[in-house]
Amino acid sequence: MDQLPKCDANYVSLTPINFLTRAAKVYGNRLSVVYEGTHFTWQQTYERCLRLADSLRSFNIAKNDVVSFGVGSEHSSSVRDALCSAHGRGVISAINTRLNPDHVATILRHSEAKVFFVDYQFVHLARQALQILMTSESISSKLVLPSVVLIDDIESPTGAIFGEWEYEQLVSKGNPGYTPCEIQDEWDPIALNYTSGTTSEPKGVVYSHRGVFLGSLGIIIGWEMASEPVYMWSLPMFHCNGWTLAWGIAARGGTNVCLRNTTAKDMYRNIAQHKVTHMCCAPIVFNILLEAKPDERRQFTSPVQILVGGAPPPASLLEKMKPLGFHVTHSYGLTEVGPALVCEWQAKWNNLPSEDQSKIMARQGINTVALAHMDIKDLNSMTSVPWDGKTMGEIVLKGSTVMKGYFKDPKATAKAFKNGWFATGDIGVMHPDGYLEIKDRSKDVIISGGENISSVELESVLYSHPRVLEAAVVAMPHPVWGESPCAFLAIKKNSEGKSDDVKEADIIAYCRKKLPHYMVPKKVEFMPGLPKTSTGKVQKFQLRDLARTFVVSEKFPSKKTAQGHQAQPARVALSRL
Amino acid sequence: MDQLPKCDANYVSLTPINFLTRAAKVYGNRLSVVYEGTHFTWQQTYERCLRLADSLRSFNIAKNDVVSFGVGSEHSSSVRDALCSAHGRGVISAINTRLNPDHVATILRHSEAKVFFVDYQFVHLARQALQILMTSESISSKLVLPSVVLIDDIESPTGAIFGEWEYEQLVSKGNPGYTPCEIQDEWDPIALNYTSGTTSEPKGVVYSHRGVFLGSLGIIIGWEMASEPVYMWSLPMFHCNGWTLAWGIAARGGTNVCLRNTTAKDMYRNIAQHKVTHMCCAPIVFNILLEAKPDERRQFTSPVQILVGGAPPPASLLEKMKPLGFHVTHSYGLTEVGPALVCEWQAKWNNLPSEDQSKIMARQGINTVALAHMDIKDLNSMTSVPWDGKTMGEIVLKGSTVMKGYFKDPKATAKAFKNGWFATGDIGVMHPDGYLEIKDRSKDVIISGGENISSVELESVLYSHPRVLEAAVVAMPHPVWGESPCAFLAIKKNSEGKSDDVKEADIIAYCRKKLPHYMVPKKVEFMPGLPKTSTGKVQKFQLRDLARTFVVSEKFPSKKTAQGHQAQPARVALSRL
Repeated sequence: MDQLPKCDANYVSLTPINFLTRAAKVYGNRLSVVYEGTHFTWQQTYERCLRLADSLRSFNIAKNDVVSFGVGSEHSSSVRDALCSAHGRGVISAINTRLNPDHVATILRHSEAKVFFVDYQFVHLARQALQILMTSESISSKLVLPSVVLIDDIESPTGAIFGEWEYEQLVSKGNPGYTPCEIQDEWDPIALNYTSGTTSEPKGVVYSHRGVFLGSLGIIIGWEMASEPVYMWSLPMFHCNGWTLAWGIAARGGTNVCLRNTTAKDMYRNIAQHKVTHMCCAPIVFNILLEAKPDERRQFTSPVQILVGGAPPPASLLEKMKPLGFHVTHSYGLTEVGPALVCEWQAKWNNLPSEDQSKIMARQGINTVALAHMDIKDLNSMTSVPWDGKTMGEIVLKGSTVMKGYFKDPKATAKAFKNGWFATGDIGVMHPDGYLEIKDRSKDVIISGGENISSVELESVLYSHPRVLEAAVVAMPHPVWGESPCAFLAIKKNSEGKSDDVKEADIIAYCRKKLPHYMVPKKVEFMPGLPKTSTGKVQKFQLRDLARTFVVSEKFPSKKTAQGHQAQPARVALSRL
Repeated sequence: MDQLPKCDANYVSLTPINFLTRAAKVYGNRLSVVYEGTHFTWQQTYERCLRLADSLRSFNIAKNDVVSFGVGSEHSSSVRDALCSAHGRGVISAINTRLNPDHVATILRHSEAKVFFVDYQFVHLARQALQILMTSESISSKLVLPSVVLIDDIESPTGAIFGEWEYEQLVSKGNPGYTPCEIQDEWDPIALNYTSGTTSEPKGVVYSHRGVFLGSLGIIIGWEMASEPVYMWSLPMFHCNGWTLAWGIAARGGTNVCLRNTTAKDMYRNIAQHKVTHMCCAPIVFNILLEAKPDERRQFTSPVQILVGGAPPPASLLEKMKPLGFHVTHSYGLTEVGPALVCEWQAKWNNLPSEDQSKIMARQGINTVALAHMDIKDLNSMTSVPWDGKTMGEIVLKGSTVMKGYFKDPKATAKAFKNGWFATGDIGVMHPDGYLEIKDRSKDVIISGGENISSVELESVLYSHPRVLEAAVVAMPHPVWGESPCAFLAIKKNSEGKSDDVKEADIIAYCRKKLPHYMVPKKVEFMPGLPKTSTGKVQKFQLRDLARTFVVSEKFPSKKTAQGHQAQPARVALSRL
């Protein structure tokens, strides 16, 4: 049987590019993109891709060359572009447009981008970034500035002028009869995504064609996405290429509903108008949808499936989403793996009280069929933790959807792949039913008197307070316990438009009712809004820096108040990555 | 980026065995198998597999060694077994138990099976086959008879004695702590399936781990199978390993409902009792379900999804299934590719008249996302035919779900893989919307006076006659046209229990109303039932042999009656494979 070799008929490289080729054939007349008044079918999208790919030949893009995109999540060209550029052999790098010019310049330099597509909204950012790149001290004779292509609004062109080409010009001048390059090796790179850097400097994550192909199918199956989805782009495409759905929607013959602004008004309008069936987002978008004014809301008849990730959604938020017509599924992923786990719903949970359902929904769940293995390992012994829902360890993953590695960073790559697993840096527990739940980023666990306190658990309690809008808990130095929890909160305004009526003592009293004493924040700090990364994640390192400056005056406690603590110096129970 | 190599963390061989490992972890407490009173969870199934795999070590099964199964579609061990044996490194070969002993012996010899699992129902068949194998003239000193393992009924053991071991004994004596072999190369073989031989001698088709992994996901997506399916085994497992669902159900955490007999009574009973959601079958099973007596039927509340394949389902049959609560999806596949195409339903078709819907449903549809490409090629020029729904050509397929090749048959393998495609030998048309429809097996096309007549199209008209139970049309020699259509029919009994009230003239008159003159059968032959292969396909070669003996007395027709014919000798418009 070993004498039956691979040949053209029975071995075709796995690549998501084939989703597009196939969609053009078998879903040719279906809508691929809807952006306000602009509509394309999959056949038209494919033709536009071929034209663009043909035009891109003049940029001499070779294998492994990077084609960068400075585009928002929200506009009609985003999806096409991602698909297109890969047709031109390039490696897609969707740059986070919420970064500052310094960061963008760093990424352009690091990735050695040959072409830089810039949406008209981000011309200012891109111009500054390119200027930094040109004048930077580190500039060397080797550096070649990327060619710049402006993407004007397709619906209402602004006439902005920037760079050498305009996107639609490139599309028009290309030959629709262009024969795209075949992907010779499925291990070849397709995308370069920079991490958002909640805990460190951004790193360049390289995806293979094989990884993205499998990852896309994994999320389609895990999320139970049927044919003809109508998918609304509430998720930025620069976040794991829209959790791989930039390609996945083509695999399902779906429609991409694009919008420029993820305001409550625009989201509700598009949902109602286009009968949106699916959307992805971070929990922060729940707040936008929940806080919508009555005139911004729209009625829609069938439920919208929301895949939520980025941070564990507090149960209280989940409970509020259901009555509005949103059916939430929780997913877990990282830039390094894409969407990796889905909290697949089980029919038997339908009979549980709503509160219990929300608690289960907040779990990260199970690995998709595309990701071979997940586990939670004790960091010292590297053995699996017991499935008791209590014992914490590091979440590790293994499978063909895991990144190829970090671009130009063999040291970080080796560290991430130690012991044959990808170490996520996230801390979790395994429930007896095999569902995984994150307790924290390993850096975010608070170790107080030898006890591990999950900041996520504490935040979940804080979110259940009716006036809490945003909550984050970090470690604060403590003279006795080593560390103790410090809470940062943004408070909802009351009917008088004020938020300062909620006091530190109220919050602490609230937590005392719900938590063991040692877990109660020793300090509560109020802010108008928490500092966030460009992808909407709370920047805990900033809060941690702030918390370090706080002085706690608490004396060594009596035995009575030291409930749950062991009276001994803090020890590090979990190694910090 | 080429300096980012594959490693254990980011490259894991694609294998459906992982569906089982994963199911044991993440769906551990869900039911895997239900067979009458016997129930197993996925955790239990996995443990049984490990025990069996451990026991199998004493048989010294090396890589590429074949483990054969002589089991029905219908009993509780079938699914477990398939999954098990691969854990023991063997290559699964599920032998069609409807074959005669000669054929079984031929397959055992050709595959060099090392172990032969035999269900107690098929002991007689297996014993005869083994005797033929032993006494056969072609026996050589090289031939080693397979070890035989009896599978007694797990629910009601009969105490049958055959072979060296009993299945449950093997399971009991094995170590549940056995560490299964890792699949090192996803291109390694996992299954050996012999073709049913509608047109030629059976050939041994080899599947790779990669191919089955992808094929399983392809059918799950194409059929829109959500989590927790309850799948009833109405399809024999020896047919492409149950269209790969022997593995696929594990990927979805589903329940396999097994039954010994696919009688109307048993099927309805299991559907109602276990709330079956999915089943696969050939159209012949529709007849069983439709012809059920009132006391055999059961009410069930939610629709049962049926994937139908094997032969194009006549529109008239499809129309009758819907009111009973069956939602039919049509699929197309071959032993060489597994399920390859699915007629994915499009929402816009919901508004069509029921008759038109049935016509669309009878199409073979579009390639699953797992199969890279499908096309219809003109056999002479090897160019794609126009998408006009009319021009016939050969269906060709390409992708990683296509077989590795035919075992020990390089000539047939090379022929099948000519020009970089797998040539199916089926003749079809491409509709303007990219949906494919089979018109015939290439051997079954009737070429009459230069016109290609699709036997399938003609059969479809015959099936629409209220009294036709089974219909098959083959070519009959014709002194003028070269060939002309000859119909073989089985007729439903009337209220008096008779079927001979339907005459040849009635059928011809009926066809004249619905078809162009040249397509009307020149002869109609009645039979109690049509001859079928062991998988339920009509054996047209037998009918063709019969038709060759018929003499047609028709004279050279006047121009008036030669409607649709060109008055010239028959020419071969389509090459015959």
